[in-house]
Amino acid sequence: MALLESIDSPAQIRDLDNAQLAQLCSELRQYIIACCAENPGHIGASLGAVEIAVAIHKVFDTPQDKVVWDVGHQAYAHKILTGRREAFKQNRKYHGISGFPRRAESPYDSFGTGHSSTSISAALGMAVAAQLEGKHEHVIAVIGDGAMTGGLAFEGLNNAGSLNADILVILNDNQISIDKNIGALHNYLLKVTTDRRYNKLKKSVWDRLGAGRLRAWLQKQVKNFKRTLLRIDGETLSLFDSLGFRYFGPIDGNDIASMTYMLGRLKEIPGPKLLHVVTTKGKGYAPAEEDQTVWHAPGTFDAATGRRTGKKSDIAKFQEVFGTTLLDLARTDPRIVGITPAMATGCSMNILQAEMPERVFDVGIAEQHAVTFSAGLAAEGILPFCNIYSSFSQRAYDNMIHDVALQNLKVILCLDRGGLVGEDGATHHGAFDLAAFRPVPNLTVCAPLDEAQLRDLMYSATQPGYGPTVIRYPRGNGHGTPWRDRTFNYIEPGTAVKLHEGRDIALLSIGAIGWKGAEAVERASRENGIEVLHYDMRFLKPVDTAALEDACTRARRIITLEDGVRQGGLYSVVAEFIASRGLDCTLVGLGIPDRFIEQGTPAELQAECGYDADSVYRTILQEKN
Amino acid sequence: MALLESIDSPAQIRDLDNAQLAQLCSELRQYIIACCAENPGHIGASLGAVEIAVAIHKVFDTPQDKVVWDVGHQAYAHKILTGRREAFKQNRKYHGISGFPRRAESPYDSFGTGHSSTSISAALGMAVAAQLEGKHEHVIAVIGDGAMTGGLAFEGLNNAGSLNADILVILNDNQISIDKNIGALHNYLLKVTTDRRYNKLKKSVWDRLGAGRLRAWLQKQVKNFKRTLLRIDGETLSLFDSLGFRYFGPIDGNDIASMTYMLGRLKEIPGPKLLHVVTTKGKGYAPAEEDQTVWHAPGTFDAATGRRTGKKSDIAKFQEVFGTTLLDLARTDPRIVGITPAMATGCSMNILQAEMPERVFDVGIAEQHAVTFSAGLAAEGILPFCNIYSSFSQRAYDNMIHDVALQNLKVILCLDRGGLVGEDGATHHGAFDLAAFRPVPNLTVCAPLDEAQLRDLMYSATQPGYGPTVIRYPRGNGHGTPWRDRTFNYIEPGTAVKLHEGRDIALLSIGAIGWKGAEAVERASRENGIEVLHYDMRFLKPVDTAALEDACTRARRIITLEDGVRQGGLYSVVAEFIASRGLDCTLVGLGIPDRFIEQGTPAELQAECGYDADSVYRTILQEKN
Repeated sequence: MALLESIDSPAQIRDLDNAQLAQLCSELRQYIIACCAENPGHIGASLGAVEIAVAIHKVFDTPQDKVVWDVGHQAYAHKILTGRREAFKQNRKYHGISGFPRRAESPYDSFGTGHSSTSISAALGMAVAAQLEGKHEHVIAVIGDGAMTGGLAFEGLNNAGSLNADILVILNDNQISIDKNIGALHNYLLKVTTDRRYNKLKKSVWDRLGAGRLRAWLQKQVKNFKRTLLRIDGETLSLFDSLGFRYFGPIDGNDIASMTYMLGRLKEIPGPKLLHVVTTKGKGYAPAEEDQTVWHAPGTFDAATGRRTGKKSDIAKFQEVFGTTLLDLARTDPRIVGITPAMATGCSMNILQAEMPERVFDVGIAEQHAVTFSAGLAAEGILPFCNIYSSFSQRAYDNMIHDVALQNLKVILCLDRGGLVGEDGATHHGAFDLAAFRPVPNLTVCAPLDEAQLRDLMYSATQPGYGPTVIRYPRGNGHGTPWRDRTFNYIEPGTAVKLHEGRDIALLSIGAIGWKGAEAVERASRENGIEVLHYDMRFLKPVDTAALEDACTRARRIITLEDGVRQGGLYSVVAEFIASRGLDCTLVGLGIPDRFIEQGTPAELQAECGYDADSVYRTILQEKN
Repeated sequence: MALLESIDSPAQIRDLDNAQLAQLCSELRQYIIACCAENPGHIGASLGAVEIAVAIHKVFDTPQDKVVWDVGHQAYAHKILTGRREAFKQNRKYHGISGFPRRAESPYDSFGTGHSSTSISAALGMAVAAQLEGKHEHVIAVIGDGAMTGGLAFEGLNNAGSLNADILVILNDNQISIDKNIGALHNYLLKVTTDRRYNKLKKSVWDRLGAGRLRAWLQKQVKNFKRTLLRIDGETLSLFDSLGFRYFGPIDGNDIASMTYMLGRLKEIPGPKLLHVVTTKGKGYAPAEEDQTVWHAPGTFDAATGRRTGKKSDIAKFQEVFGTTLLDLARTDPRIVGITPAMATGCSMNILQAEMPERVFDVGIAEQHAVTFSAGLAAEGILPFCNIYSSFSQRAYDNMIHDVALQNLKVILCLDRGGLVGEDGATHHGAFDLAAFRPVPNLTVCAPLDEAQLRDLMYSATQPGYGPTVIRYPRGNGHGTPWRDRTFNYIEPGTAVKLHEGRDIALLSIGAIGWKGAEAVERASRENGIEVLHYDMRFLKPVDTAALEDACTRARRIITLEDGVRQGGLYSVVAEFIASRGLDCTLVGLGIPDRFIEQGTPAELQAECGYDADSVYRTILQEKN
């Protein structure tokens, strides 16, 4: 990797020729594969976007020119090229670099990303700012075809197309998010890219262009007929034109010569432009190209063979429990359907999908629509389980309030990846869900302790006694409690479970983090003879006031434990209970403090935030004294 | 109004002929005008949509067939036709009917609306539900061209266009939301509707169609060439086709014969269809047609003359203070710009717009984009004031967390219409904002007591010491405190103001509702000799702990007062303070309780919720005993 090792800044690649750039792309791929084999990451998207990153830094004057990487996990090549080659070995690690662009990390990361579909809006803001400040700079948004289905991207296009700002949107079309993309936009793009004329031109022109043979001829043509030549399929290219963008493409986004050529030309064209490039997710690494869903973020693997080396746990993941239970419930209740915004595999709704494809609706990256669509289903008597990653559900906050809760429509919103998610870091932690949904009337808000409880809560939510319900659980392994084929038990809303008997100190926990609490309670009993009264609250709303009453009556020291923000969460609920009754108790809240938490393992982050088992144990000892 | 008075159910209009239907439309208009003259409402949109409502109920078998009215304030004719003619006199009144469709109100209101852009998603859910349940029913979404710019609408189109569900979207194109619509989609629709061929066809065919002359010929043509004939402009009509919809139109949506004819034909065509109809906002009432922005919701007026009869208060509205202050600030600080999602007039950003149009960005109905666009501006050193109605800001929750707060970008989010807004009711109350934004790190969250404080907080937020800031204030009149041309005073974040000295009882209020508290405090002093320590907290975050300490030390009874949900709001903040310190205090929280509040005057609703001046006074007396 002689070439890559010489590159410490994008300025160094601006003099390279196409052959050298191709070599650089090849080395970048090797390096990404080697690093990700040992230190897992989002390899698929980043392998597909290597040429996009190289071409942008070759053609544009970064960091004065700005690039916004939508979602951001496609940006590894960008990170490596912009002074973070060595740091990339600590990608996504505690105190390492973020797996996503981050303004605080590099001047080349002009806008932080993580959630989908923000790039056009942000880039437009930056382009307008440059106009206002009289600066001449280029602003580029790189957005996948999956992210383009998010409503925010459309709002950005609609505004940009009328403001006439100098913005270049590179639509990185790889036909896949994590699962295969769906939706009308996908069908449209597929039609464009499979059009015969495109393929013909691609073969006859672009492939040779890489070798430089047709260059002189083409340059002249482009100058004369810039628009007409590049609009390869006049009939089908009007979607983006309708929205005020000049559409160019599609071209092969994995061909570095085409990419640098096109970007160089587009640099000279003012106004809103969209370049449609077709890439292959996992490009250049056969296993990743072959199974793109698995290789979205495959964990560790052997680079030579592509064999995945991650240990498989005997303990089921919450995701598997969710997926299996949904299927079990759907088998017995024909009203039940599943809705996912492009996360069928991630949340395991693919288990239901495999058996009853007609009862799973993957709506694309569209969290708002997922919830309002669910509300429409519920209005007509269907019983929708809508599964959204907790941090992405922030997008659907209004839909839960305005379309679901206000109408008291029975939508069961399952929030996957609640709490500190680990390596994905600040953009992806499910920190705010419980606090945000608690004030919303008509909602039941709960978080299971373990596999069996998730299963029972999912079942219970389908029963009378439950209206619209939020069930929130973490990423990854459960506790190992038996759950499969277990009979469903109805859980009364607002009922807690006593996990340990005690006095003097009470621990009130909600969700799977309760096991860390139980570990601490056990240790305090064993090592210090302190018996802590421990309730697994299960419900944030309605809260079990009898359990709170019991805890506050028998213990004067109350500790709350939650894998979410304290402010507005269980901490607030218990504080309100104590203060409104004038009880003679003191309260300590363990949970996510009032600052954003970066990446690391969940254990590292829970320790940092003071709510791993050790911290709970120490808090118990402190409170005892 | 002989015909209208005979209609108690849509079934009764199904036998009417076009002449009778035209008469019915005319009577509906008279009735809407007469009712709204005395009892204010959203007259403009509803006048424009009379023929749409009549045609839908004529052609479709409502309520078995479902219609979802986007935003919903266009649905007055629908309400009047569906058994609520007399009830409409109590439109938007306390214990009257809602100004928006509401499921609990009528089986004809198949889905409640209020916020923009939900109708396609909801209708798709209902159409899919019907498929799953094997029912044959038609589902219609009626959506304005303004609402179509909301990302949620695009997400719905994208999903519907690929599911092949039987859904009809009627795009009610009147070129205006409250202010003139803007954006690329608007330009596109304008191009379609002003195309010469459309106008020619409209004149030569559709106008006569109303008179029935070309009917036989046209019916035959339509049968043979259904698609090709109706696609009047092949070149520009492909936006919706690209998204999998069959596009029809544009036709004159205020011509009842065209409307019933088209709907009758479309009823027989399966799959996703979009009918583009052009209407005039305020249609049939000259003053409303002439000034569509003012007549969006004009207040009371004299029906004969169109003279608006609403009393003008001497006291400035918070909106005027916001708009004027923004202009004052922008004059001295070139970094300052304003961003509004289609509410330039409503929030008074038009004051800045009039003087510096290049520094106001009306991004259309697109709250998510408004915030992320602001973040992009802020990333490049611009200082954006983004103004969003509180309840609509629920749409931008993720953008505030992920794009603004996480990156600590200085966006000043001004939340207009915080608290109980009054006659717009449950969908529009700004109830959740303070509770939702408080847990978000890096944000400063405040709510001014009066005009002067709003002005000073807006100024202060531009100064060092403030990062991203949420400033939240109510709809309507301030307190009458002098503010105009007043020198700006810097307010230190997290500082409260003592409004009244006292002991035994402390009242902690936030925002303009504090004046109700002050009134009660004054009365308790005057009538009962009870001296209440009253702090105007100003900031929910950071909170003034010295003020809390003072209140809790000197008084054992604490009352919090807020015009928002108690859970997660000031009530929780103070509860946490008391419980975490084990203070010997009891807390009573006054604010919005844990249920949705319907429409009425703010005074009626505050009384219902127990936080008008009388209620605060009674609470003070109770706590004293």
